[in-house]
Amino acid sequence: MTTVREFIDIHRHDLLRDLDEWLRIPGISAQPAHHADVLRSAEWFAAAATRTGFPTVEIWPTAGMPTVFAEWPSDDPDAPTVVVYGHHDVQPVDPIELWTSDPFDPTIDGDLLRARGASDDKGQLLFHLLAVRAHLAATGLTSPAVNLKLLIEGEEESGSPNFEQLLADRHERLACDVVVITDTGMLAADTPSTVTGMRGLVAATVYFHGPDLDLHSGVFGGAVPNPATAIAALVAALHDDDGRVQIPGFYDDVLSLTASERELFAKVPFAESEFLSVAKSRALDGEAGYSTLERLGARPTAEVNGIGGGYQGDGGKTIVPSDAFAKLSFRLVASQVPERIRLAVEEFVATRTPVGIQARVEWDGDGVAPCLVPLGTPAYDALAASISEAFDGREVLPTREGGSGPEAAIQQALGVPLVFLGVGLPDDQIHAPNEKVNLSMLYKGAEIAAGLWSRFAQVGAAALRDLTPAESPAAGDGSAAG
Amino acid sequence: MTTVREFIDIHRHDLLRDLDEWLRIPGISAQPAHHADVLRSAEWFAAAATRTGFPTVEIWPTAGMPTVFAEWPSDDPDAPTVVVYGHHDVQPVDPIELWTSDPFDPTIDGDLLRARGASDDKGQLLFHLLAVRAHLAATGLTSPAVNLKLLIEGEEESGSPNFEQLLADRHERLACDVVVITDTGMLAADTPSTVTGMRGLVAATVYFHGPDLDLHSGVFGGAVPNPATAIAALVAALHDDDGRVQIPGFYDDVLSLTASERELFAKVPFAESEFLSVAKSRALDGEAGYSTLERLGARPTAEVNGIGGGYQGDGGKTIVPSDAFAKLSFRLVASQVPERIRLAVEEFVATRTPVGIQARVEWDGDGVAPCLVPLGTPAYDALAASISEAFDGREVLPTREGGSGPEAAIQQALGVPLVFLGVGLPDDQIHAPNEKVNLSMLYKGAEIAAGLWSRFAQVGAAALRDLTPAESPAAGDGSAAG
Repeated sequence: MTTVREFIDIHRHDLLRDLDEWLRIPGISAQPAHHADVLRSAEWFAAAATRTGFPTVEIWPTAGMPTVFAEWPSDDPDAPTVVVYGHHDVQPVDPIELWTSDPFDPTIDGDLLRARGASDDKGQLLFHLLAVRAHLAATGLTSPAVNLKLLIEGEEESGSPNFEQLLADRHERLACDVVVITDTGMLAADTPSTVTGMRGLVAATVYFHGPDLDLHSGVFGGAVPNPATAIAALVAALHDDDGRVQIPGFYDDVLSLTASERELFAKVPFAESEFLSVAKSRALDGEAGYSTLERLGARPTAEVNGIGGGYQGDGGKTIVPSDAFAKLSFRLVASQVPERIRLAVEEFVATRTPVGIQARVEWDGDGVAPCLVPLGTPAYDALAASISEAFDGREVLPTREGGSGPEAAIQQALGVPLVFLGVGLPDDQIHAPNEKVNLSMLYKGAEIAAGLWSRFAQVGAAALRDLTPAESPAAGDGSAAG
Repeated sequence: MTTVREFIDIHRHDLLRDLDEWLRIPGISAQPAHHADVLRSAEWFAAAATRTGFPTVEIWPTAGMPTVFAEWPSDDPDAPTVVVYGHHDVQPVDPIELWTSDPFDPTIDGDLLRARGASDDKGQLLFHLLAVRAHLAATGLTSPAVNLKLLIEGEEESGSPNFEQLLADRHERLACDVVVITDTGMLAADTPSTVTGMRGLVAATVYFHGPDLDLHSGVFGGAVPNPATAIAALVAALHDDDGRVQIPGFYDDVLSLTASERELFAKVPFAESEFLSVAKSRALDGEAGYSTLERLGARPTAEVNGIGGGYQGDGGKTIVPSDAFAKLSFRLVASQVPERIRLAVEEFVATRTPVGIQARVEWDGDGVAPCLVPLGTPAYDALAASISEAFDGREVLPTREGGSGPEAAIQQALGVPLVFLGVGLPDDQIHAPNEKVNLSMLYKGAEIAAGLWSRFAQVGAAALRDLTPAESPAAGDGSAAG
């Protein structure tokens, strides 16, 4: 009998061959000219899953691009069920002139494989095919220790417009005890980590209407309400001098960081100068009392994405404008509820609309809930142990992402815990020219997954569904942490 | 010997004939197609002044449209010198379809004469030609009791782009003891009044630059400074809750309203519902402790004319924008100095520029100084007495205009007091279709001017230059009046 690592070492070339084939298919979901390629991409993965041994492989159509579903039941009737989420579509390649090689002609340079989709997300899906073979070889089983379901979306890079519908339609087929998201990364090649939270989002445009026409500021200025002044006052009122959001109730449902979470945050390497250099910003900013990583991952925000009103041209025009607007978005963290935040924002706007101004708040959809993997749950501990093992016993650091993908929708639709097994690296240049993946990270990913199925089986279905961590964070306004 | 009023009554037809001729010339300075007409208009007035008896009449070219200058020296070597300012160009006539008669075919309907320029400003200049004849007839003099200089601009409706240069070039020819502005109006046909102040103006665009590119608000939001948030905070900081401008030093040079000035303001009829209806505004607003007319005429303002930054399209875009701006203008009142206010604003912006934001303030020129006719000066009292006499002894109410024309430039260039002799009415529809003038107001104007030259002569040159009123308002921050 071989070990997982040995099997992977021996069969690396299978992964490389798969990568070379699949990465040649330019499945750019955002570009209709490439929609046939997205279909080919789905078919390619379906065939690869079949070849790997998945007894059930289906291509699920949507109103847009198709999802691939592959299922490999365990022979053990008590085995827990795992859904692995990823996506087979890729980002556009513009600006193409900045690529040093053809984005769809995979190029290997030492440990690096450069191609569009190498890291996001084809490389990370392909390690799962190698992983399940290693899992079987190392355990001697003829079927996985868990009921394994792969859910591979085809429109993630286009905002997953049909994914919630698919989750609703396929609810029964997707029944499971835990979801493994494989579309994220680690802090560094030598710093094992896992995402444990993603911020949610609600966004709106607030319109303020004052006089029904632009007025001459000499004749009327100083005697009628100015909606541009009012919108500025509204925006300015969003934060206090400590960067704390001033909307009443905004922090009510925020889970405070526990002391141990803050300790772990503090261990995550953070290079301020590099962060500022990437952001091309001259300073850090944000809520007082929190580190940058805490601000980005564990604290909610109110952000002005756009503001406008009145004269926009060169020079001046002495008017009192008729209209003004602000585009506001709010990043949410567990356990904030988009609906409650929307109501709080509307109340805030209503309270701060001056006499003589008419306000209208237009929401960008219902919003996205935040998601959080509580540390210390059985599912998290199993993942952390598997990662640590692949990194020869190193401590696994929890990280949080500032943005959000379809993960919260998956969690809400399937009602089970999520964990994040991703092996991308910060310098993978996903969504940018010269995307690459470190092959060594893909091998690590395969090793983690192969071990994880065994650990999940040991934990058992009921425990995997458990969302109560050993140390439970308190819901509250988080001020204790500040 | 005839009285002024008798002479005017007898010679009304001369004024009507002049009006009918001059108003037929479409001297629209803003429209190059009409520039030949503006030249004809200047020539027409020059000829009319010559015909009236002005011994010196010149057409002064500028880089744009010409000014007419007419001079009639007094035989009295001690006579004071008066410059009468007005303009012979007119506004465009669009939307032409809203006119009930041809704007350049003067139409008389009872007391009303309808034509473009009837009130603004040809009618008001022509009463001066009748006035000087009435003045001579009533006094028996063969030359006016004052050295009379008419300064009739040809580009006022185009923003007087060459006027300051002309004032500088012709400084010696324009030497005088007092200036009479004849381009304003009265409160109502039965409410004699005179403008006593015009607000000045400085205007700037404030640019705030944050990160060098728009950032993803999920990845960076809450951790870097947002220039749209910063510009909103800057704008919001301009006023306190009482509508008081918060720029340090802003009110330092503001002349407080005296108790008697406030009493006079309170006498000026003001229909709130009509004001709101014209403004199409749902409420009044402004600095606490002042009436609307005081806010418009006697108090300085900070106004946001435009604000912008970040995403401007439909829906949302979750970015931290790179740039934001605010277009600010400040209406000034006596004795605020544009240069000092510009420095105060720059200091305010510098103080309120957050760390990590780069600020730039771009001024719209040097600004316009406010002008004020202090009540109780000899020049003002002479004007008020002349107006009162023409209105059979009624009290003359001082009013203030919220905006500004070239008056402050005249005052600054010539360094003497201004007074405002204008007989337009609020419903004259200047700058709009169906402009009209009340002929009875033009006759009143002639009567006032004819009497004024005699009064100015009695006052004498030295006293006319006196800017010290009987009751002197205190310079200060005006808070006592609030």
